[in-house]
Parts: sequence; structure tokens; C-alpha cells
Amino acid sequence: MTRPTLSPTSRSTPRRHPERARADRSELDAVLDAGLICHLGLILDGAPVVLPTAYGRDGDTVYVHGSSGSRSLLAARPEVDACLTVSLLDGIVYARSAFSHSLNYRSAVIHGKAGIVTDLEAKVHALAVVTEQLAPGSWDYTRQPSKKELAATTVLAMDLAEAAVKVRDGGPSRDPEDEAATDIWAGVLPVTYAWGTPVTADFVDPGLGVPTHISERRW
Amino acid sequence: MTRPTLSPTSRSTPRRHPERARADRSELDAVLDAGLICHLGLILDGAPVVLPTAYGRDGDTVYVHGSSGSRSLLAARPEVDACLTVSLLDGIVYARSAFSHSLNYRSAVIHGKAGIVTDLEAKVHALAVVTEQLAPGSWDYTRQPSKKELAATTVLAMDLAEAAVKVRDGGPSRDPEDEAATDIWAGVLPVTYAWGTPVTADFVDPGLGVPTHISERRW
Repeated sequence: MTRPTLSPTSRSTPRRHPERARADRSELDAVLDAGLICHLGLILDGAPVVLPTAYGRDGDTVYVHGSSGSRSLLAARPEVDACLTVSLLDGIVYARSAFSHSLNYRSAVIHGKAGIVTDLEAKVHALAVVTEQLAPGSWDYTRQPSKKELAATTVLAMDLAEAAVKVRDGGPSRDPEDEAATDIWAGVLPVTYAWGTPVTADFVDPGLGVPTHISERRW
Repeated sequence: MTRPTLSPTSRSTPRRHPERARADRSELDAVLDAGLICHLGLILDGAPVVLPTAYGRDGDTVYVHGSSGSRSLLAARPEVDACLTVSLLDGIVYARSAFSHSLNYRSAVIHGKAGIVTDLEAKVHALAVVTEQLAPGSWDYTRQPSKKELAATTVLAMDLAEAAVKVRDGGPSRDPEDEAATDIWAGVLPVTYAWGTPVTADFVDPGLGVPTHISERRW
């Protein structure tokens, strides 16, 4: 059995730090599945625009909530050039030189075309995928979208065919120039993420209790 | 005394959820100063590209580390259209309907031109700004860049004149359609960030101890 690999094109092949590139498809899925928001890049009036938004992955497709900008952009055409990036910051890398300071991170950069999901059934599915990425368990627990709500929501879809995955982990690089600087500390300061205590909305009976899919959510 | 305000153009005026827009310049600075990475959008070969990178703010300028893509892009011209976005995710907003699920966040979207910092003194200053954003205290504590390292680094600068700041906080919206769904919990699951325990590099004497600007760094 062969493992699925990414098929990088010129633009999805990292030129800087190629040792950080990951070619295995499963690593792309891992980064996308671990994230909560993405940054979607589009071209509006000839200039790039980068907007943070919710997203979700299902198989070889990533879905994102459309902005008013993307809606007006896509009003006149079926799809547009887009770049969807998910980044997870894992730590600050302190070196003995300012130059060698770095970040530990995992990132996925997806290049391709974004199009609006128009088929109603496909749109409901896409919204379920985005909702479950953001709030696992919420799709079945809460009221699903009405026809009016569906009409008020724009969902974009992108294919995962062209993607670059990069991972930097471990400690700082060992620079021969700084071997003698034994009085300067170097290492990694990890970033840790956790869920805080759920805050019940003021219109909800405090006696209701927080459902376990929220109270026991793990990072 | 008047408080400086942002001067939004059409593209920097949020159309969706205008109540989340912030017009005060100090709120732009607050978002930029709280972030650790930005997402820089450029147009390469006619398509948008969004790359995560380190950045830093000084006054009305934001500096970012240039990628190989931005370098080749800027080799032939003094500046290019760019969009620099910083997003801070503060919580997941659970509503009684899937449609009303949301995110609590702070974001800054800066539109403008990015150009390479060429003046050597300005470049050293820009690198100090970026280093201090990522690792406060590191610029003075570690070895500063050599001429060779400076030559190997590209720093881009963008002006903060055209920016949009959005903040969503508080609980879920109260939807009349879901008033009767008293058995469904709604509220916010906060995201919390913290620094983990510093990991000393294997080439550093463990007896050296972690300097306080790192061990006592606050989120």
C-alpha cells in the first residue's frame, strides 16, 4: 500500500528551509484538522485581501465561510483564485543570535480555485463540516439551519490538490559562530493552548449544566 | 485632545457585522502588539498567496520577514500590493442554532503597499522590532546580526494608514426563534494561551538557568 503524497507544484514547493516541508498527505490532514481558523487570501480590485474565517475539511475538500467580499467577487464568475492557510504556532525558538531566532509551527498553504457551494444538499453538508470543526458535537445538538438561514450563508469550497505543508519543531540551530557564548541561554518556549471554563449565556438557565461535548472538549 | 482614529477606505470598512468594527487607532495597536505571527497576502503569478510570518510594529509601520516569494516579487519593483492580517482567537461561541455559532476574536487587516527595507540602519532597527515582538528582551541579550546575516535577511515594511480592526466578544446572539429551546445550552468556551516550561537546547549547559525575560514572560 502506498501512502498518499502531496503533489507539489512550483508554488507549493518551499524554497526556504526545504527540510521543513512535509510531502505526506496525512500531514496536511493533521494540520487542517488541528486548526480552528484559517486565513483566506483573495484578490479584490487587483489587491490581495487576507481574511480570518472558520473552515472545515471533508476528504479532499476544504470549506470556508464566505465574506461579503468573496460574495461580490464570485457573483460574476463560478470560481476565483484563492489561497487558504492554516497555521499553528507551537513555540518561540530562542537562539544565541537574533538572526537564528525562529518559531516552531505547523502550517498548511492551499493554492487553487474557490467556488461557491450552490447545491442545497452539498451546502448543508459543508455547513455541518465547518460547524463540527469549530464546535464538535454542535451540529446534532443544536437546531440546524432553516431555509432562510441557508440562503443567508455563503460557503466556499477549495480542493486540496495543491498544498504545501511545513513543520518546524525541535530546538534552535547550533551556530558555530556562537559556540563560545556559553553564558547565553538558548532553547524553546512552548506555546500551550487550553479551553477555559465555559461561560453560560445570560438567557440560559444556569441549572441546565454544560453538555459534555463542550465541558469535556479537549484541545 | 483628539484620539487618533483609523481612516477607513471602502475596502477597510467591514460590511458584515459593522458593529464589530473599531475605529480607534489604539485598538489597532492593541491587536498588533498582542499577536505573535501575522498572515501576509501577496499576489504571485496572478494568484493570491498567504504566508504566516513573524512581524513587529513600530509607530505607524509594521515590519515582516520577507519570504523567497516576496523577494523575487520585489526584485523588479520598489513595492507591491499587500495585505497583512493579525488574528487572535478568544473563544468559540456556542448558540442554540448552528447558524448562530460564532467566534470571539480580535483582528487587524492592513491594506497597502509592502516594500523592502534597504537602508542598513533602518533594517537593523526593523529586525530589532520584529525580534522584540517575538521574543521580548532577546535583541539586547543575544548577539546582534552580522553584516552577512543582515544581507541574508529581507525585511518588508507596510504603513498602517489603511486598516480595519474588528472585535467580537461576549455571548451568543439571542435568537427569538430559539427562545423555547430551553434544554439547549448556549455560551462561550474561551481559548486560553500560556507559555509552557522552557526547554533548554541540548548544547546549552543545563546549569546556566533560564533568564527571567524568558522564564517570567507573560502571555
